[in-house]
Amino acid sequence: MNYAIILNVLGKLLQFLALLMAIPLLVAVYYGDPLLPFAVTLVVAGFLGIMLSRHYGAGGDWKAREGFAIVAFGWLTAAVFGSIPFILVGIDPLNALFESMSGFTTTGATVLQDIETHSKSILFWRSMTQWLGGMGIIMIFIAILPKLGVAGRQLFRAETPGPTEDKIKPRIRGTAKILWTVYIAISVLEMVLLKLAGMSYYDAVTHTFTTMSTGGFSPYGAGVAGFDNPLIEGIIVVFMFIAGANFALHYRTLYTDHQSLIKDNEFRFYAAIILIATIVLTFSLWKDMGQSIGTAFRYAIFQVVSITTTTGYASTDFDLWADSSRIVLLAVMFIGGCAGSTAGGIKVVRLLLLFKYAQNALFRSIHPKAVKTIKLNNKAVPEDVMQAIVSFVVIYIMIFAVSTALLSLMGMELISSITASIATLGNIGPGFNLVGPMSNFAMVPALGKILLIANMWIGRLEVFTVIVMLTPEFWRK
Amino acid sequence: MNYAIILNVLGKLLQFLALLMAIPLLVAVYYGDPLLPFAVTLVVAGFLGIMLSRHYGAGGDWKAREGFAIVAFGWLTAAVFGSIPFILVGIDPLNALFESMSGFTTTGATVLQDIETHSKSILFWRSMTQWLGGMGIIMIFIAILPKLGVAGRQLFRAETPGPTEDKIKPRIRGTAKILWTVYIAISVLEMVLLKLAGMSYYDAVTHTFTTMSTGGFSPYGAGVAGFDNPLIEGIIVVFMFIAGANFALHYRTLYTDHQSLIKDNEFRFYAAIILIATIVLTFSLWKDMGQSIGTAFRYAIFQVVSITTTTGYASTDFDLWADSSRIVLLAVMFIGGCAGSTAGGIKVVRLLLLFKYAQNALFRSIHPKAVKTIKLNNKAVPEDVMQAIVSFVVIYIMIFAVSTALLSLMGMELISSITASIATLGNIGPGFNLVGPMSNFAMVPALGKILLIANMWIGRLEVFTVIVMLTPEFWRK
Repeated sequence: MNYAIILNVLGKLLQFLALLMAIPLLVAVYYGDPLLPFAVTLVVAGFLGIMLSRHYGAGGDWKAREGFAIVAFGWLTAAVFGSIPFILVGIDPLNALFESMSGFTTTGATVLQDIETHSKSILFWRSMTQWLGGMGIIMIFIAILPKLGVAGRQLFRAETPGPTEDKIKPRIRGTAKILWTVYIAISVLEMVLLKLAGMSYYDAVTHTFTTMSTGGFSPYGAGVAGFDNPLIEGIIVVFMFIAGANFALHYRTLYTDHQSLIKDNEFRFYAAIILIATIVLTFSLWKDMGQSIGTAFRYAIFQVVSITTTTGYASTDFDLWADSSRIVLLAVMFIGGCAGSTAGGIKVVRLLLLFKYAQNALFRSIHPKAVKTIKLNNKAVPEDVMQAIVSFVVIYIMIFAVSTALLSLMGMELISSITASIATLGNIGPGFNLVGPMSNFAMVPALGKILLIANMWIGRLEVFTVIVMLTPEFWRK
Repeated sequence: MNYAIILNVLGKLLQFLALLMAIPLLVAVYYGDPLLPFAVTLVVAGFLGIMLSRHYGAGGDWKAREGFAIVAFGWLTAAVFGSIPFILVGIDPLNALFESMSGFTTTGATVLQDIETHSKSILFWRSMTQWLGGMGIIMIFIAILPKLGVAGRQLFRAETPGPTEDKIKPRIRGTAKILWTVYIAISVLEMVLLKLAGMSYYDAVTHTFTTMSTGGFSPYGAGVAGFDNPLIEGIIVVFMFIAGANFALHYRTLYTDHQSLIKDNEFRFYAAIILIATIVLTFSLWKDMGQSIGTAFRYAIFQVVSITTTTGYASTDFDLWADSSRIVLLAVMFIGGCAGSTAGGIKVVRLLLLFKYAQNALFRSIHPKAVKTIKLNNKAVPEDVMQAIVSFVVIYIMIFAVSTALLSLMGMELISSITASIATLGNIGPGFNLVGPMSNFAMVPALGKILLIANMWIGRLEVFTVIVMLTPEFWRK
């Protein structure tokens, strides 16, 4: 293991984050908020970053391990760094780390109880962490930093370990640049539309940050429900849906083949899941909650898209719904968005391939000698990719089960334990009951918060990148 | 598809079941209960069975498909047949089928509300269906019927599709005979011990029937809790534990290698799961329910073994426990017993191999070029066996999720929907809340009962045997 290179890159990351801190600092200047929280963070991170990079050289070999370590510790570094402004405005350090990790991982679970009591600049920073985390804090770094070379590919792979190939350009730096450019362009579009729909500039920017990243933070306790505006909800639904799809396909759809999206197997399955879940939920809200079909559809489509894309916005308190309606949301919590999107969760393509794999096994149980390959977009899926998918899901479900059991053993009620676990591991945000959309995670015991912070981190890095570091194999020479 | 042979074998099965009906008939004579329910069933099934076997010849080819069809329809036939006595004593036909399917599949979920109002002979038959279903109603048939030849192997494979090889003798009939002999011998032993511990002959026989089959029916509404006798509970714990392990290994342990059981990877994992779950549950009952360590251990070991082996007995109303205790039982509901046991569920060996598979993938993510095979008992596990296991779990979890969603949409509360689904699919019996151990399934809506009947059937035949028949491939020429 090349420790020097890891510390060197983490140092550069800190410098970069220090630079970004200038943005909330300017916002604080504009609104007349205290400048110290951001200024101190900027200086401390910048200084520490420069020290680390100077002291440890960037020479030597890169292997897969160094990639994993940099990405895993890189996200941890970003979360710790991001929590400093929160601590400096008086938030308890564990809560601050929870909030910052929830931000960078685009989870959107919050421990803040009276959100509106915080300054505009702090809440701006809180939303901004999601936007940075959405497309990948390491990826932005790959896009900007020259000469990462092959190392960039290792980092890219460790940060976006989805089973589909996201390469657009032969050089990884080109791909990272394009993905970030598309992300920024669509974000600008959403911001303009939200402004035109009646939001203030501040609200438009912060909500764009947390829609495009499928994050779900809002500077208001009531979240999107507080606006109670169907037009705003409609715009947000469209952009959540876009953010939950593959950004490489967005690029291709815009520049090379306009049918890239609708020809893609994963995108079709994603759209079908959202369609079916919306229909079922609309029906259930109409039948069991006595809503008109129009109202039922309005809340159903927003909530299905919000939870499936792992955004976690609430346009109504869905925790008050009957279980026949909540079950639809619980089901989509286990799905997530598409690979190459800003969404978390198991990801649509993994589930799609698992279904195909099971179908294949059924076929083989009748025709034991038949060989039938599993195909995605008309290309055969290699056996090792299938193994990685199966293993991902096995480990994911194991972590979910252990997390649920531990929270219950700490005294949390069952439905709250189940949904708090999947909502953090899947980077969704709110769950049901104690951690419902109009509630928050403040009452989770301290040990439970540490567990959920780990869930968010593991979930954002799609399990392997973190879990692999827990194996003795990883540290062996 | 050779339909004649399927109907021929089903006819023979009916004749065999008609013969078995003589046993509850004798019990009814002994207790002076009405004879008609059993006599009518005997005559109708016997007559229909003879007609079918005479009319359809046993000639022609056997393939995997015929095996699947005979086993799947064979169990359905047994369940329908077994429900006739219940219908004849005035139980509503859907409830009767539910009770009979719950019996033959060794689930133990009941729709009877006042169990003690039924006659001793009816409750004897109810327990006996579990004992017949435990080792396999088709397998007893293979053991007894001569000249099934290769066809016997197809049936054996379709009924016990577990991933481990259960063959003891080269001829499948020999294996089936040995397994049934071991099953009968251990059953006699348990019966004697329960009698010595103070049970009446009737109670000893009926509880042996439902312990050895990991069924869980009891002729008393309060079940095992009604005896409130630690010695009886201890005996039942030991025999549930034995019934949840591989019977082929029991045979080997007795006759060839005495260390067969403790050397077996699956058995060790099974014992470890039970040990750990018991420790956690004892701790949780002590801490959160204020029980003494001794009392906590007594209830913890009984309930962990009962649920892990999918028996479903309750020695106390575990539904009154805090969520921190209930979560342990919920977790083991997703495990089940060993392959080759009378238990249901996902089965320990499948989970063990999935963990090894995931571990392997983690290893390969650091060493992409390394090849490492997955081993069970020092033998490499072939790729197609792994695929079958993965597919089993995928389909199993899908059925569980769909079943939970459908029950919730029918208006059932969430925890009840979740546990009713896994308790029937895993052939366990009781769940939590509305379907708790001191409650019953009577209030499930009619459509829900049909769904749960399907779950029990699919679960007992380990998914593939039923699901494969739903594919168009199966019926194609």
